[in-house]
Amino acid sequence: MKLTITITCADDTGLIHRATEVLLRHQLNVEDQAEFVEKDAAKFFMRAVCSGECVVEDLKEQLSAALPDDAVIGVHRNRLRRIVIFATTEAHCLGDLLIRHWQEELPVAVEAVISNHSKLASLVEKFDIPFHTIPHEERSRQEHEKEILSCLQGYEPEFLVMAKYMRILSPEFVQRFPNRLINIHHSSLPAFVGAKPYHQAYQRGVKIIGATAHFITPELDQGPIISQATTQVDHTKTPRDLMWAGRNLERTVLAHAIRLVSEDKVFVSGNRTVVFD
Amino acid sequence: MKLTITITCADDTGLIHRATEVLLRHQLNVEDQAEFVEKDAAKFFMRAVCSGECVVEDLKEQLSAALPDDAVIGVHRNRLRRIVIFATTEAHCLGDLLIRHWQEELPVAVEAVISNHSKLASLVEKFDIPFHTIPHEERSRQEHEKEILSCLQGYEPEFLVMAKYMRILSPEFVQRFPNRLINIHHSSLPAFVGAKPYHQAYQRGVKIIGATAHFITPELDQGPIISQATTQVDHTKTPRDLMWAGRNLERTVLAHAIRLVSEDKVFVSGNRTVVFD
Amino acid sequence: MKLTITITCADDTGLIHRATEVLLRHQLNVEDQAEFVEKDAAKFFMRAVCSGECVVEDLKEQLSAALPDDAVIGVHRNRLRRIVIFATTEAHCLGDLLIRHWQEELPVAVEAVISNHSKLASLVEKFDIPFHTIPHEERSRQEHEKEILSCLQGYEPEFLVMAKYMRILSPEFVQRFPNRLINIHHSSLPAFVGAKPYHQAYQRGVKIIGATAHFITPELDQGPIISQATTQVDHTKTPRDLMWAGRNLERTVLAHAIRLVSEDKVFVSGNRTVVFD
Amino acid sequence: MKLTITITCADDTGLIHRATEVLLRHQLNVEDQAEFVEKDAAKFFMRAVCSGECVVEDLKEQLSAALPDDAVIGVHRNRLRRIVIFATTEAHCLGDLLIRHWQEELPVAVEAVISNHSKLASLVEKFDIPFHTIPHEERSRQEHEKEILSCLQGYEPEFLVMAKYMRILSPEFVQRFPNRLINIHHSSLPAFVGAKPYHQAYQRGVKIIGATAHFITPELDQGPIISQATTQVDHTKTPRDLMWAGRNLERTVLAHAIRLVSEDKVFVSGNRTVVFD
Repeated sequence: MKLTITITCADDTGLIHRATEVLLRHQLNVEDQAEFVEKDAAKFFMRAVCSGECVVEDLKEQLSAALPDDAVIGVHRNRLRRIVIFATTEAHCLGDLLIRHWQEELPVAVEAVISNHSKLASLVEKFDIPFHTIPHEERSRQEHEKEILSCLQGYEPEFLVMAKYMRILSPEFVQRFPNRLINIHHSSLPAFVGAKPYHQAYQRGVKIIGATAHFITPELDQGPIISQATTQVDHTKTPRDLMWAGRNLERTVLAHAIRLVSEDKVFVSGNRTVVFD
Repeated sequence: MKLTITITCADDTGLIHRATEVLLRHQLNVEDQAEFVEKDAAKFFMRAVCSGECVVEDLKEQLSAALPDDAVIGVHRNRLRRIVIFATTEAHCLGDLLIRHWQEELPVAVEAVISNHSKLASLVEKFDIPFHTIPHEERSRQEHEKEILSCLQGYEPEFLVMAKYMRILSPEFVQRFPNRLINIHHSSLPAFVGAKPYHQAYQRGVKIIGATAHFITPELDQGPIISQATTQVDHTKTPRDLMWAGRNLERTVLAHAIRLVSEDKVFVSGNRTVVFD
Repeated sequence: MKLTITITCADDTGLIHRATEVLLRHQLNVEDQAEFVEKDAAKFFMRAVCSGECVVEDLKEQLSAALPDDAVIGVHRNRLRRIVIFATTEAHCLGDLLIRHWQEELPVAVEAVISNHSKLASLVEKFDIPFHTIPHEERSRQEHEKEILSCLQGYEPEFLVMAKYMRILSPEFVQRFPNRLINIHHSSLPAFVGAKPYHQAYQRGVKIIGATAHFITPELDQGPIISQATTQVDHTKTPRDLMWAGRNLERTVLAHAIRLVSEDKVFVSGNRTVVFD
Repeated sequence: MKLTITITCADDTGLIHRATEVLLRHQLNVEDQAEFVEKDAAKFFMRAVCSGECVVEDLKEQLSAALPDDAVIGVHRNRLRRIVIFATTEAHCLGDLLIRHWQEELPVAVEAVISNHSKLASLVEKFDIPFHTIPHEERSRQEHEKEILSCLQGYEPEFLVMAKYMRILSPEFVQRFPNRLINIHHSSLPAFVGAKPYHQAYQRGVKIIGATAHFITPELDQGPIISQATTQVDHTKTPRDLMWAGRNLERTVLAHAIRLVSEDKVFVSGNRTVVFD
């Protein structure tokens, strides 16, 4: 049995020692381990991948006893994470994820795709994945999200992936899924927050464009950053060229972020992330 | 009508002037133009995108008259380039191209996919593109390539794209398609020529990995480079992790190379390329 | 004689043809040429490096006659550009430029260094370059800049290079030197405008940091971008680590920008640049 | 007191636990810790930065008792590392290091510069650092290295930094300084081993160039890689342009490698490095 153990708690003396003691007591073999102390926040983060046999509930209980009271402890079995993907009309991120899913390159099971448009239905259905069109027109945002929530009830996603989903989610919706909503933003945040970032980038005459995968929080484009990438551009590039270059980044950055969260490598610390990549 | 005009010839005085004179005479409006002189080889390269109405044969003839005798002149209408994709068992590049093709992101028409394995048939058929399995077992390389050539006769591809096709092509095959065979190599050439480059990279302990799209020439992995990209890695990355990172580069670099050649932006100069990107 | 010819004018038919005709008439041999049309602004940009003998005034006059009335024509001899460097207390960019200057790696002559602090005097004087301390304390900004202008009168700089000069220049000062004031900004603009960008970057938890060289305009950090670069960082990096990584970018990006403007490769088009790199 | 503790040993169960037990017993506060297991070699690597008061010899002894017999244990006080820099005629890396040293940006003390040419003497002397010209002409390699060794006896360098030192060192010389000789190679190794890499890169028509800092081993350009970086280039770049771009990488990569080794972040594992960056 392979287990991934994640620990977040207030920083204290001897935490690594205390945690590894419990792992040893359960005769778990640590194959990969990393820790980090966020000094400003006085927070401790640890991730260990172990092999061996043990009763998961016992392990959790003993880790809990050995660590500070505020400790958040995860013990994750090595299995596919269930995700639901949201999209609108752009196919590049969704298509990339469908292919990676088809070739079993990502540790995820795509349960369904939800879209406010029907345009991408035919693409998704090629891969025998349920596609739900939930239009936003002639509905309040509240009504629209209620329909989405109702649709989601048929699934048990651990992460909701916004693969170029062009609707802003309400704070109420966002708060239901803390650190479980992943978005791909079409710029190197914090630059070019909001709409039409490639046109903004063109107008500003930048020589670098980027893409950012982040958790969604109620404040638009301000959530903790999981992964980013950039590429060089020059004056000859039109907004359409910038979009081509940017979309290549978006595909890769989003897939990378999904891989990281699915392997329990991402910890949220305030508005920052600790990523044991 | 939009035309792309490409010129390669021995360098000489006033070539830009002479060429633009012919374009003006045909009342073509130059929307985008670039030139380059390769000094070592004393060669001149020019690409112009023009709009206007003209008789293409007249244009070519007058350009020919105005330019040195060795001039190779192309006048290309703005249309999709026909390609046939070759693959073996890895889906990442092929899948990426299928998605880009589906969403009309590349100026190409995929006529067919040819593979020496049947594994990827079900993926290709989702997109209603012909898939031909031509196994290499129990055949000489000559016989195998003869079957491939026979299969290609049903199509008229301008470019053959090796999207992780794991067979080495014979010099005879290669020479039939000068500057028309595009390969994606899983390293930043000239490093790690040959097989298992990610294991080679791991063994060498590199901190950078890359991918290279190049034209195929008879000498293995030595053809003119069209596009390259690299990314940072560290000691924690296994050969499998390097492969993940490398495949992300491969997808993007191959798609970029196909876009460049399809837009007539790539000129071959000896073993180097001139790329008006 | 080697000449670099630069042309900026309203876009029109046959501009390349008309310009190259004049060059041919003067028996100039074009060694390197590039053009660009900024479509939104309908502006034409051209740069040609030529060798041959000619009367510069004649050449300019005839180019002027051949091109639209608004054409701005430059004919530059191949020589070192005079610059004055401004700094405050940080040595990394200044030191880098002093070394590059010492080894004749940049096509510039450093006439002097001006600083509002005396800290870097001993460094600059090692290289036998005049160092002027012009303190800003107990002076209005207007008085301070008056002293600077007075000091500059002893020199004839073509470019003023702000190598981590930590004072904001008044609009009046800036307007005296259009497209001649080069600044290095410690972030990938437009992110993290203003002070303490590395602390801002740390707080925001970015995975990418950058640096930007730009022309200074009256609006803070909004001038045309000449060159940018970025690098990957992760959660383990403190603001001090980010500063180390960022300073490496700043050195290179500023030196690159100085090389580009000194070789007449940078054209300003509204708030964007055309860079024939 | 701040201590950096480094451990290399055969992999075993509970190593982190055993090591942290000793640190706790000495009431050391772990501020930063990282471990890595190289699975192929079954080797364990750990680095911990601690604060507190303790008798270093006791600490080492107890760590030794707690860990496998083959354990190599380092306990390093936080102080400047002594280095001697070797150069020939190129100033860019040497000059960069001199400036970084002057502004106290690197945790090193430059004891001296040794060169087989006198060209860079005037640069080094500006910074009041001893410069030794030891010409290689009219001497056998053995004699030349004997003179160098004799010169080094006046210093106690922990690392010898080859900052574009263009002589090949004999295996005998190299073996005297295991993992203490740092070289900067002007390509992204393993590409372009040997001389004139920028000309090689130009001839091969690469679209990426790089630089590599590595430990020197008897086999030329084959030692463990510490740090690498790359940058995009295109067909317009001459060998001289490639050299400019490459030198920018060389400066940064070499300084980065020196910082890493001086902070005890680099472990050698066969021909690979583990870098806790």
